Amino acid sequence: MFTLKKRSIISKARRGEFKTTHGTIQTPCFMPIATKGTVRTLSPDDLKRIGVQIVLSNTYHLLCRPGLEAMRERGGLHVWMHWDRPILTDSGGYQVFSLAKLRKVTEDGVMFQSHIDGAKIELSPERSMAMQQSIGSDIMMQMDVVLPPNANSLTMRDAMECSLRWARRSKKYLQSHRQDSVTDDQALFGIVQGGVDETLRRESAEALIDLDLDGYAIGGLSVGESREDNLRVAEFVASRLPQNKPRYFMGGGMPEEIVAYVKMGIDLFDCVIPTRHARHGSLFVMKPFNFPLSNVEGSFYKTLNISNTEHATADISIDPTCDCTLCTQFSRSYLHYLFDMKEILGMRLATEHNVRFYMRLMERIRMGVESGTV
Amino acid sequence: MFTLKKRSIISKARRGEFKTTHGTIQTPCFMPIATKGTVRTLSPDDLKRIGVQIVLSNTYHLLCRPGLEAMRERGGLHVWMHWDRPILTDSGGYQVFSLAKLRKVTEDGVMFQSHIDGAKIELSPERSMAMQQSIGSDIMMQMDVVLPPNANSLTMRDAMECSLRWARRSKKYLQSHRQDSVTDDQALFGIVQGGVDETLRRESAEALIDLDLDGYAIGGLSVGESREDNLRVAEFVASRLPQNKPRYFMGGGMPEEIVAYVKMGIDLFDCVIPTRHARHGSLFVMKPFNFPLSNVEGSFYKTLNISNTEHATADISIDPTCDCTLCTQFSRSYLHYLFDMKEILGMRLATEHNVRFYMRLMERIRMGVESGTV
Repeated sequence: MFTLKKRSIISKARRGEFKTTHGTIQTPCFMPIATKGTVRTLSPDDLKRIGVQIVLSNTYHLLCRPGLEAMRERGGLHVWMHWDRPILTDSGGYQVFSLAKLRKVTEDGVMFQSHIDGAKIELSPERSMAMQQSIGSDIMMQMDVVLPPNANSLTMRDAMECSLRWARRSKKYLQSHRQDSVTDDQALFGIVQGGVDETLRRESAEALIDLDLDGYAIGGLSVGESREDNLRVAEFVASRLPQNKPRYFMGGGMPEEIVAYVKMGIDLFDCVIPTRHARHGSLFVMKPFNFPLSNVEGSFYKTLNISNTEHATADISIDPTCDCTLCTQFSRSYLHYLFDMKEILGMRLATEHNVRFYMRLMERIRMGVESGTV
Repeated sequence: MFTLKKRSIISKARRGEFKTTHGTIQTPCFMPIATKGTVRTLSPDDLKRIGVQIVLSNTYHLLCRPGLEAMRERGGLHVWMHWDRPILTDSGGYQVFSLAKLRKVTEDGVMFQSHIDGAKIELSPERSMAMQQSIGSDIMMQMDVVLPPNANSLTMRDAMECSLRWARRSKKYLQSHRQDSVTDDQALFGIVQGGVDETLRRESAEALIDLDLDGYAIGGLSVGESREDNLRVAEFVASRLPQNKPRYFMGGGMPEEIVAYVKMGIDLFDCVIPTRHARHGSLFVMKPFNFPLSNVEGSFYKTLNISNTEHATADISIDPTCDCTLCTQFSRSYLHYLFDMKEILGMRLATEHNVRFYMRLMERIRMGVESGTV
């Protein structure tokens, strides 16, 4: 499914294509977050217009509402949300640990109460697979054990080993349930765990590679560890993953971080930053194109808080290099006013802009890998 | 500016064209509300796509923010909100009476405190004209005195007479200040007042007609009077207005009411119903086209509350006769879910649909007048 098209001559960065039932993804690629089957404020037509290739939806939220059976009855998420391009779903594990009430964790899985109405729901590696088959995502993630960043090393080993067993159970479940999916040929990605401990990370990566999964994710980072640890572990893991499979850094990050991860040879990214920042009025602005992409904060872009009073009278566009609706039709002063008035159009235009910024960033990255500048 | 194209053979309904600097409006026409320079949740591109000819913005709100000087510095509302079709602005009077704090009303005008920050602002017939010139609307409304529906007849006469004097002052101000506008050839409409008293209404209409304004509005209705009074007074006033000027019913109404007003010979309408109902999940659904337009509630359409549980599993479109984004791409169950999850996309899709419903209603009305069925 994954084809390595080109490797950078100056870094470990890769240009690839990942083929799915709903289309081929050009990598490196960023996936905006459609937690509840919608990238907040945007329509599928908007997403296509600004070049979004794939969105990420959250299995936990869709399991709470509408639920497994209802999702299958609706024909899966592609049909329901009117999105015919690829979808990646997480396993639901992360949100069970961060959102649900009254969890009980065992080797078998997790019993929890929905954060919406307290309904009792079970999540196990098998049930996560079943839910992701009901959603029909193109890329499914295995369920893993998510730990707080301050967990001790023994707990961290237990979690890593349990995650490995859950990866095997996920693959085994799929082998006997392929026909249950609403989408043909769903890919299954494993998640490398092990905190900031290279020994654990190596064991995790090697065991997952032995399972011959469709792709590999680097999990358990961007959860509070130092930036140094984050980059060190990401590079350590990336360098141990096979060249012929896609690599996915979960939950990161700022533009310069994505540039850094790409240079380590990572292909896929997701993050709430562009969408969430937009809803709070924080906008990404590209510097002129003679500022080359780099892994230094703000080197090739800056951020702008539209609520600052200086923008109230600014009759210029947010980003003169940008081709989104906001930048081609409206001024900073109008967006400032929309945010001041709490008009929904403000959040919507800002979201489209920030997602478009990330899409343009990835376009520059892909061109850079091809031309030998990234 | 107004051309009467055709008169119905079965009612007093008229097909007309009203020419403005920003384009020609085909009447009868409905104007969605863009209170603060945006039809809530929708972009100007959306509005054009669904056939909106003209929007209504509120002078009071724009006077509070961004203010008269700032609006002029921004180049007027068309430039600022990126809308190159016509705009109508009310005078600001209505909101001063309904929203502002601590009003002091005199023959000269009104001193009030902004509902946003308590800032002291003055509104007079002249200042309303100046603000509407700074906005650059294509159709300006005279400032009038707005009374609660239970006012006594003496107060009602005073208000009507004061409104007439304010109409004269508005016209006089414009004659010496035409050059202050950011838009060429702004039209000025007078507002017929007088409550439910036909004597007062006749006096008001005749005096305004003598002023030879560009169009005439029927004000002071849909403010709590009985439906019988509403229709009686609307018809009484409409029948006394000149054929060669556009007629505007302010603030109404439901689809069957608009049909009724059209049959009285009224040309322009505005109302919060389509947009506000949409944000509360109430959607208009056209019945099959063999249900003819009429002035009976729900005769040719029905309303649907998307939050009702019956829609949670409905894999059908909201309105199979409708060509909007919602109806062509999504199911009732998905919209139900978006509202359940309080996702902004739900309000946005519902708003586009309801406004499109009103646009289709007006298209049917215009065709009906031409073909002799309305």
